[in-house]
Amino acid sequence: MSDFETDRRHAVSQVAAFFDDLLHVPDGPENRLIEAMRYTMMEGGKGFRPYLCYAAARLLNVDEARAIRAAAAVEAVHCYSLIHDDLPAMDDDDMRRGKASLHMAYDEATAILAGDALLTLAFEILSHEATHKESTKRLALVSALARAAGMQGMVGGQMIDLQSPELDLDSGGLTRLQKMKTGALISFAVEAGAILGGADDGERHALAGYAHDIGLAFQIADDVLDVDAASADLGKTAGKDAMDDKVTFASLLGTERARDQAGLLVEQAIAHLAIFGDSADSLRQAAEFVIRRHS
Amino acid sequence: MSDFETDRRHAVSQVAAFFDDLLHVPDGPENRLIEAMRYTMMEGGKGFRPYLCYAAARLLNVDEARAIRAAAAVEAVHCYSLIHDDLPAMDDDDMRRGKASLHMAYDEATAILAGDALLTLAFEILSHEATHKESTKRLALVSALARAAGMQGMVGGQMIDLQSPELDLDSGGLTRLQKMKTGALISFAVEAGAILGGADDGERHALAGYAHDIGLAFQIADDVLDVDAASADLGKTAGKDAMDDKVTFASLLGTERARDQAGLLVEQAIAHLAIFGDSADSLRQAAEFVIRRHS
Repeated sequence: MSDFETDRRHAVSQVAAFFDDLLHVPDGPENRLIEAMRYTMMEGGKGFRPYLCYAAARLLNVDEARAIRAAAAVEAVHCYSLIHDDLPAMDDDDMRRGKASLHMAYDEATAILAGDALLTLAFEILSHEATHKESTKRLALVSALARAAGMQGMVGGQMIDLQSPELDLDSGGLTRLQKMKTGALISFAVEAGAILGGADDGERHALAGYAHDIGLAFQIADDVLDVDAASADLGKTAGKDAMDDKVTFASLLGTERARDQAGLLVEQAIAHLAIFGDSADSLRQAAEFVIRRHS
Repeated sequence: MSDFETDRRHAVSQVAAFFDDLLHVPDGPENRLIEAMRYTMMEGGKGFRPYLCYAAARLLNVDEARAIRAAAAVEAVHCYSLIHDDLPAMDDDDMRRGKASLHMAYDEATAILAGDALLTLAFEILSHEATHKESTKRLALVSALARAAGMQGMVGGQMIDLQSPELDLDSGGLTRLQKMKTGALISFAVEAGAILGGADDGERHALAGYAHDIGLAFQIADDVLDVDAASADLGKTAGKDAMDDKVTFASLLGTERARDQAGLLVEQAIAHLAIFGDSADSLRQAAEFVIRRHS
């Protein structure tokens, strides 16, 4: 196993341990909600977003416990978005992370509420003093997450995505959609590390550029994957974009050019990290993971 | 019109103006989301929760613009909860505030996303420096809202409520459910005023006691209303609790005893306000409004 793999698994297991500790199943009727929250959180994900947060924070010498709390908030928001996106009224996906999606394992109402609770929990985690002793830093995290996840970020992007079969998006429109739907939370994950670490302007700028490029590369790679992969490998229903008549980078550019584009973006992302020297190797490997992950 | 009515309408119109300013419909496919958010926010509600926040803040001499921002965050969370609760998978209500509920006027996917975006927006509003110049106060608001709205508050309460037909709740169980589902956000509304106003321990304690009692009175009155009112007056489907086989304070106590109980709680709530003298008259009238509102 590469250093990167070991490192990623460590971060994922720390986030899982954090949630294991936080999400107790009480002896009452609300335990159904907690169990449902745990169902999606505790296994199966690759932990790309929380790892980015963790690695960016470590680059800036942030205490690991704090980095894991911010990474956990990122993972909570990511899982909430998966749960809601999978609902029958949305993307209607029965499978997620290699098992039944939450509304199939429980029911729709529980899935809606578990998503709502995970989103809310992210803000509770970030605002808690254990995340950073300085209130200005916790507040910066809350504010940045609200912007990344909300109407001008992830939720807005999902709204556009749902309408995309009728929109006839060109490459610019699709890039904008993906910056909102996928890119905003990936950017937040990296930014959270920068906030916790008190990055200076140059460092913040470099990390923001890096996050922007890998966010887009990630989505392009995902679109190519959707065309290529078999259902079993991917752990979700593959080929679904085409079935849903959605414009993707693969359908716009063709899979070959799309793959090239993702590769270029990863190179560009890595170039942003030059100011950090060798200490940014984890983030470099994370960038390469984006295009390497399922090939 | 009473002073209270004039005052309540003023607060509601200020909150509406705030959202009118904030929720611009951009020239793009995400305007569907913004329109859907506006649909529920901008009209029809009685504004009880935002008014409580506004009046508690005014009692402690908080600048009106700040009070309205906190009140708007409360209203955003309340509206999100109504939108999600009305969904077919949840309470399946076609009517809300005298018009089609959001998933009927738009569609389920848009309703899920509009709710998600309103919840997220509440945290964005509270964390913005315009809400208070001190970051510790904004952070206290964020943290208190996350706890009130999340798995141990509103969302947890809704999870229990959905299971309540099978739970055979007694009065203690039902009280606990309602403290989470309805009471937590009402308590936050009042607490937000206390946080913004820098209330001392005695003031916070008094306001918390007041909020607790009117929260429960509100729910008991609501249960009685559901039995009594005709569908047209209520603006939502009346008699629904009984149809859904839900235990309510009306079914547990009978409407007469339930009405008495609500009246007692309102008296008790008002007693908590003694330390404020006449300056708490708005909150006293708000407490009376709870049992008077539809009779």
